[in-house]
Amino acid sequence: MKLSNRVKEVPFSATRVLGPYAEEARKKGKKVHHLNIGAPDTNVPDEFFEAIADIKTRTLPYAPSKGIESLREEISKYYKDKGVDFDAEEIVITNGASEALLYAIISITDLGDNILTSNPFYTNYLTAFRELGISPNIFETSVTDGYRLPPYEEIVKSIDSNTKGILLSNPSNPTGVVYTKEEVERIVKAAVEYDLYIIADEVYREFVFDNLEFYSFGQVEGIKDRLILVDSISKRFGACGARIGCISTKNEELLKEFVKLATSRLAVSTVDQIGATALYQISDKYFKEINEEYDLRRNTIIEELNKIEDIEVYKPQGAFYVMPKLPVEDALDFAKWLLTDFDVDGETLMVAPGGGFFYGREDKRHIRLAYVMNVEDLKKSITILKEGLREYRKLKNL
Amino acid sequence: MKLSNRVKEVPFSATRVLGPYAEEARKKGKKVHHLNIGAPDTNVPDEFFEAIADIKTRTLPYAPSKGIESLREEISKYYKDKGVDFDAEEIVITNGASEALLYAIISITDLGDNILTSNPFYTNYLTAFRELGISPNIFETSVTDGYRLPPYEEIVKSIDSNTKGILLSNPSNPTGVVYTKEEVERIVKAAVEYDLYIIADEVYREFVFDNLEFYSFGQVEGIKDRLILVDSISKRFGACGARIGCISTKNEELLKEFVKLATSRLAVSTVDQIGATALYQISDKYFKEINEEYDLRRNTIIEELNKIEDIEVYKPQGAFYVMPKLPVEDALDFAKWLLTDFDVDGETLMVAPGGGFFYGREDKRHIRLAYVMNVEDLKKSITILKEGLREYRKLKNL
Repeated sequence: MKLSNRVKEVPFSATRVLGPYAEEARKKGKKVHHLNIGAPDTNVPDEFFEAIADIKTRTLPYAPSKGIESLREEISKYYKDKGVDFDAEEIVITNGASEALLYAIISITDLGDNILTSNPFYTNYLTAFRELGISPNIFETSVTDGYRLPPYEEIVKSIDSNTKGILLSNPSNPTGVVYTKEEVERIVKAAVEYDLYIIADEVYREFVFDNLEFYSFGQVEGIKDRLILVDSISKRFGACGARIGCISTKNEELLKEFVKLATSRLAVSTVDQIGATALYQISDKYFKEINEEYDLRRNTIIEELNKIEDIEVYKPQGAFYVMPKLPVEDALDFAKWLLTDFDVDGETLMVAPGGGFFYGREDKRHIRLAYVMNVEDLKKSITILKEGLREYRKLKNL
Repeated sequence: MKLSNRVKEVPFSATRVLGPYAEEARKKGKKVHHLNIGAPDTNVPDEFFEAIADIKTRTLPYAPSKGIESLREEISKYYKDKGVDFDAEEIVITNGASEALLYAIISITDLGDNILTSNPFYTNYLTAFRELGISPNIFETSVTDGYRLPPYEEIVKSIDSNTKGILLSNPSNPTGVVYTKEEVERIVKAAVEYDLYIIADEVYREFVFDNLEFYSFGQVEGIKDRLILVDSISKRFGACGARIGCISTKNEELLKEFVKLATSRLAVSTVDQIGATALYQISDKYFKEINEEYDLRRNTIIEELNKIEDIEVYKPQGAFYVMPKLPVEDALDFAKWLLTDFDVDGETLMVAPGGGFFYGREDKRHIRLAYVMNVEDLKKSITILKEGLREYRKLKNL
């Protein structure tokens, strides 16, 4: 008996790879600030808990495989409010955006195919690719210009006959870049020119700052058949623990396959779907307040990061991540060291080493920080980072 | 842009393939009795709803990828009570047994590999195989002896160098057979002889009748490294709509892979896990009462089926399915006809055609019936089946 080759190729999620060291630090009595994972600390709106506490039924049959109709209708309304035209019938509820991504990959790729995406990209895209036997094909972006899209020629350079789609998170995890209308259209041009599907991961669409107008792939005309929109309530309502995502398309053939795949795993949690339906009914005021809070956090973390010597940083415009370049030779080693050998008055922090977000190049300089905590803890965390960097560089003669 | 070959090979679940016809029948005002799918009509114990109504937290971060510790501990206790030795650390919580099965397949097979199983087998095994690019390898069982295991030589006949495991549901969906200790050991012998993993799907273990003692693969000595136990609360507590399953193994290498896969999709529903924890704490009295109710249903359906002329039926010993052979030439056509052209006083029924449960042979005679309704509705349903058969056979000159 052996393990399969495919499972051996699935990497551990970069956001959790230092978990055991954090555990060890906690056991030593240290307080660990978690900037490694994008799990908001904000309350889920009460409507979620009220709706589930109010469930009257005492039976729990499988929900429809496609998802509860009222939830699909609420999501459709939400989209249409934003200029994204998906009917309830064109939406399939999934176990988080993670499952939505698997459905997209299974439906458009065969073994050995590839999907084009930016470098760096969300670490769990790679685990999904590896589970399903495909590869990423990448175009490079850089901290230097805040990870903006490269020119068209750079984007299409690595497309080959096995490329089946372009996958992009916008606003981006891990970089926080928000693509302009022109950038979105640059991707669309490539997809049309090379006849590729577009998988748009817009789970962070409510986290856009600087009064930028978010331009969804769902607003682009003429790509109905090639667009697959992936979404989730995890970030939108701070409800990561409720596993509700969805996948939407106007391509009828593709939609049928998504429903078939959904049928094969029977259903998504009824209770979470009921809670999610209530969430999509709350007022837009919620998004405004949350957005203001995250904007404050963003400004705080950038201000604090800018105080660190020799760091390369930029101001992200969306999501709740920033991916600076550190003045060290091995960010993974540094991140481990923060947990194992360093603290400021008994407190330290856990970050996500950048290596797991870059593909095909050994990155040793970047880290991803999720600013999912209150301003005070955030300030304290970046102070720890700053002092840690100073001490670590001294140790390493940097 | 094309669909992938792999998605085209995924079949529609046999339990839901007639869904559109049932929908049509309902629109015509017919009442449709659902014997097609194993979704219990019984109440979920109140403890589930009380626990989720009682949730005090107002944040919902991701649960640990491996599952909430208290739930894993309760499941471990449950197993140990039954003589199955899994520690909490050896259990990973999954989105239903469906996801557990995917993890098992991803971890032990590569493309083109196969897994040995009985014929007929649970239709969603095939969808999982196709999604992951593997095939079933089968040994035949028959209605004539109530779908018991064939002799050892028959079981191992089709094992080849690409066979990586044996998958068996016990008690069986779709046949209701409960394997004896000797039969379980026959499978174990094959697994040891050919160095295969055993994937044991024991989600129906509480549904065993005739005072039979259930013998779990988890009770067999000497197969610690090769056993993967797949489980779920869906049937056990009538809680299909809560998507809580688990996968357990004492093989440390394999366990690491399951945790890695779990990490890649972040978490399972926190709320459902809290509800499930409460379910595993209720008294065994619940199982006894449910078992008695299903035993009554079983006796009723068998008694009623035995009144039908020329049907081949047997008495299942477990789960809540029976798979009789009908005196028709095309059970799928008959099942459709029941929905489109037949009713008794405005009532008709939906069954699962057997074809989707058999692999590699075109079965046109069997149907699977799920006896998941009260005795009165069950009697009425089988009367409709009986009268439907009589009229259909007259129409077809059978």
